[in-house]
Amino acid sequence: MATIPLGLYLWKRIHQCGINHIFGVPGDFNLTLLDYIYDVEGLEWVGNTNELNAAYATDGYARTSENAGCFVTTHGVGELSALNGVAGSMTEQVKVIHVVGQTSRQMQKNNMMIHHSIGFNPDHQVFNKASKDFRVAAAELQSEKGATEEIDRVLRECWVQSKPVYIFFPIDLVDLHVSASALDRPLDLTPSADQSKIDEAVNASLEALYASQNPALYVDCLVQRHQATDEMRELADKLSIPTFHSNMGKGIVDQRKPYLVGWYNGHVSPPGVQAAFEQSDFLFVAGNLPSDTNSGGFTRKLTPAKSCSIDPESVTIKGKEYPGVPIKAFLRSFIRSLDQNKLPKATLPRLPSPEPETDADSKAITQSWVWQRIADSLHANDVIFGETGTAAFGIPDTVNWPENVTWITQTYYGSIGYATPAAFGAEIALRNRPEAKQAGGRTVLVTGDGSMMLTVQEIGNMVKHNLAPIIIIINNSGYTIERIIHGARQSYNDIVPFDYAHLLPFFNMPAEEAKKNFHRATTKVELEDVLKKEELVRPKVLQVVEVVMDMMDVPWGLPTQLAIRGPEVVKEMREAGFKLPRGMQKQEA
Amino acid sequence: MATIPLGLYLWKRIHQCGINHIFGVPGDFNLTLLDYIYDVEGLEWVGNTNELNAAYATDGYARTSENAGCFVTTHGVGELSALNGVAGSMTEQVKVIHVVGQTSRQMQKNNMMIHHSIGFNPDHQVFNKASKDFRVAAAELQSEKGATEEIDRVLRECWVQSKPVYIFFPIDLVDLHVSASALDRPLDLTPSADQSKIDEAVNASLEALYASQNPALYVDCLVQRHQATDEMRELADKLSIPTFHSNMGKGIVDQRKPYLVGWYNGHVSPPGVQAAFEQSDFLFVAGNLPSDTNSGGFTRKLTPAKSCSIDPESVTIKGKEYPGVPIKAFLRSFIRSLDQNKLPKATLPRLPSPEPETDADSKAITQSWVWQRIADSLHANDVIFGETGTAAFGIPDTVNWPENVTWITQTYYGSIGYATPAAFGAEIALRNRPEAKQAGGRTVLVTGDGSMMLTVQEIGNMVKHNLAPIIIIINNSGYTIERIIHGARQSYNDIVPFDYAHLLPFFNMPAEEAKKNFHRATTKVELEDVLKKEELVRPKVLQVVEVVMDMMDVPWGLPTQLAIRGPEVVKEMREAGFKLPRGMQKQEA
Repeated sequence: MATIPLGLYLWKRIHQCGINHIFGVPGDFNLTLLDYIYDVEGLEWVGNTNELNAAYATDGYARTSENAGCFVTTHGVGELSALNGVAGSMTEQVKVIHVVGQTSRQMQKNNMMIHHSIGFNPDHQVFNKASKDFRVAAAELQSEKGATEEIDRVLRECWVQSKPVYIFFPIDLVDLHVSASALDRPLDLTPSADQSKIDEAVNASLEALYASQNPALYVDCLVQRHQATDEMRELADKLSIPTFHSNMGKGIVDQRKPYLVGWYNGHVSPPGVQAAFEQSDFLFVAGNLPSDTNSGGFTRKLTPAKSCSIDPESVTIKGKEYPGVPIKAFLRSFIRSLDQNKLPKATLPRLPSPEPETDADSKAITQSWVWQRIADSLHANDVIFGETGTAAFGIPDTVNWPENVTWITQTYYGSIGYATPAAFGAEIALRNRPEAKQAGGRTVLVTGDGSMMLTVQEIGNMVKHNLAPIIIIINNSGYTIERIIHGARQSYNDIVPFDYAHLLPFFNMPAEEAKKNFHRATTKVELEDVLKKEELVRPKVLQVVEVVMDMMDVPWGLPTQLAIRGPEVVKEMREAGFKLPRGMQKQEA
Repeated sequence: MATIPLGLYLWKRIHQCGINHIFGVPGDFNLTLLDYIYDVEGLEWVGNTNELNAAYATDGYARTSENAGCFVTTHGVGELSALNGVAGSMTEQVKVIHVVGQTSRQMQKNNMMIHHSIGFNPDHQVFNKASKDFRVAAAELQSEKGATEEIDRVLRECWVQSKPVYIFFPIDLVDLHVSASALDRPLDLTPSADQSKIDEAVNASLEALYASQNPALYVDCLVQRHQATDEMRELADKLSIPTFHSNMGKGIVDQRKPYLVGWYNGHVSPPGVQAAFEQSDFLFVAGNLPSDTNSGGFTRKLTPAKSCSIDPESVTIKGKEYPGVPIKAFLRSFIRSLDQNKLPKATLPRLPSPEPETDADSKAITQSWVWQRIADSLHANDVIFGETGTAAFGIPDTVNWPENVTWITQTYYGSIGYATPAAFGAEIALRNRPEAKQAGGRTVLVTGDGSMMLTVQEIGNMVKHNLAPIIIIINNSGYTIERIIHGARQSYNDIVPFDYAHLLPFFNMPAEEAKKNFHRATTKVELEDVLKKEELVRPKVLQVVEVVMDMMDVPWGLPTQLAIRGPEVVKEMREAGFKLPRGMQKQEA
């Protein structure tokens, strides 16, 4: 029987599952494990600047590759530093494998006071306990016997549940030999399903659909997380009924399709969209993630009594649940069974033309103008990140995206700082998707000066790896999103200011080159000029665009959502001097 | 009865305990709580660039002020990001108060999918669970009733146990009114003690001391953590017996005292020290923290049968434990009871003169030269940080420090990246110690290019606050400490390189000024010149010194400690091309 070291088994298996890059930070208790990465053809080590950034990068890599990502830390210090990133992947349902290089079994057994441990007579597994609520499975390896089965089990759970898993790897197990035979058969990574259950759900939902007068389709982000984007697009085309998307679900259905009505977000929807949505007598709701930030502060009306809700592991039709129905398999069967002749005749709603913004003639860059202008610069196959903050509120409102744009936002978890390292991971994944690169796909990171502060060093990694993302930094002098929530002028909403002209040189790009790749815009005209530059249209190296904007300017969605809390909140925003939507301005009279 | 908002109570109480600065990062669920900081005269908000840095800064602040530190995060995202920093404070016994602004009780009760939560129907307390093993007490506030008592209880635990505590603060409790009357009486922050137990331990230890022939004193770091530095210094003077310090305990006893023999670190001690230490027939061991990294890889011989071990909460004399004896109270009583006439006549050992280093005539900056040269530049009252890496191995070996230098190193927990934000916290604390500032006390941070990568943005905060620490960066092209452990030339030990000439301008120091405050040395002569500059001797603004050194050069303590693992490790180090101590070089023949 052929045997291989357990460490090598891990990396071969992970590579076999379609992962080509391993992120992380080295440490005493993972070095020999990392050695085996170099022994797997096609697998590459990609170090990060710290462990939280490694977790974020892995998340961005997983989302962009529509597969899983993997990163390695050392026990204790590295493991805990990464925890917040893993928790984000947990709640946003992203496939992340966190491999932790642990102290040896002997050290663990003897509770030795090895560095990174906690206290006297330390339990080396306290760190493991801390992540229990932020993972769906863990391989707690303590012997080479059964270790390959444990690794395989948790890898499968990662894909099937689309959530993080941990592999705890005591360093003395790395070189022990195990049977290599399991590698002969690739892991089955698709959820188990009983076709008869799927058929039952398909038939019931088709029946409801055919009986409806005016159905609509609502697409949310879990479709993408459970790898059903292709099926969703095909189904949307086949249905051609009024189609809406959530904040987080933008881009799953191509934005230029004639049947796409727009962004339905409850009370915080663009003009006419809420009324159009509420006309439907039957709703297909796919991949719903109903957090406050993804539902206009819980004002979306996805009425169960008139809905077919297609969730990751079940379908619920007008209140009746069909469990054990994986979303991807359901959509495939549904498409196969759909008889387009039986579909009710769809009437596509016409939205009112938007009134011009009150600050439309501003020469300075305004929130009412900037997001659509950025969206207009997108190319087919781009990956665009909107960091938590004004970007995540501004971008969902934009229209006319080219086809196959991937929209990445961590809107439920909302951990500021996420997007920069995640964009690094996305760029690494794009290398891996040569068809996207050939077709002009770029990574476009839109972030703010507040968020940039938390994780800025990962930009150095982009320079090191000669990556070519476009980084657009909204510089509006602090945490504008917090200012409008509370404490507009309090010092706690100020940040540590950076001089972005020195960002690329600090991260080791030669000064002359850095000059060409840094752009600063304070007016609309300047930003127009920047976005048209050849360096941005076809970037060969990293581009940084600093967009200077007013501290008290906000996208309309932000005050609109906050206003749901009551008139005293509107009063506070108005008195602080924020730019408010027309309706709220009028209340002033 | 006078009442005040609970939020205000918290800050008034914390300020009353001697804390003048609150670190942290704002977030939706702590903004209104932060407002009340501004209502407490003498209490100041100090924002950080991210939450892990906030935790580190708080730790550095607590160590430097020899009191506690406090920081605030928002639930979930902020709370978890900081966890690794808190775990470090836990294991290193540093007083840290982590205040978490939580969602409202209503949101918690209804398991609402508020941003930052985990999954569907989320339990908002999952984050709280994650820190259970990294704190000694937590106030899980859920009502204004009893809240002030809970706050007081955990604050007391923080000081008494010298470890982190949490205060979980649902946002809707912030403005509720509570009685202010408890504030009339300052909290008792000293450990409870029964004087008769203390006396019993003092008498028994005095008896053992008087009966000894050749006693010695061994001082470790927990003395400082439990605020007994002054008592320790007084006792050391009174005893005037051969005195030794650990790696982490350096600087507690002034380094120029005639009775100070040096750094005893088991097999990893400077020439002659181990032999001198082992001559003693009776040992006072104070504040022992026996981790691998603080004990020469467990080779220290603090033989219990001939020791009086003075631990934070007990004294153990030749194996007999006296529990319930707090270290500070014990030392005070001991000093009072000590009859110097009964002390055995101490013979101070003479150490051999060290052989000159084989690379002594190098023009380039070597590990064998740089640490003492840095130590020679220290002033009385300085605070010096040695980041985990070559600094933490190199600095303990230096001699002739001026008086009252505070040495800060996170040698047990060993989380790289710690020292930079911790130095920020230390500088903030030094403002608070005007006597130190007046006497010329500076913060001197000695770190490496690898560690710098993880938390570099906190330097921006130093610039923002016009602080004037000296930052010495050993630039030796990667993780040298990991290279010598394993994988000397593997790419995982490479880092993302920074161009430090652009560090200060990037963090917004005007270019002309930045030029004057950045210094780069590649030779000993250059470093000599830099260290003599007026800007460094009496810094008015932040100084950055980049020290370029060879990737494969290491302080002798590092290979000496690794060699304990066996001859194959020595072989690996030699073959990789590291500079090894004379003894190991000889084995080559």
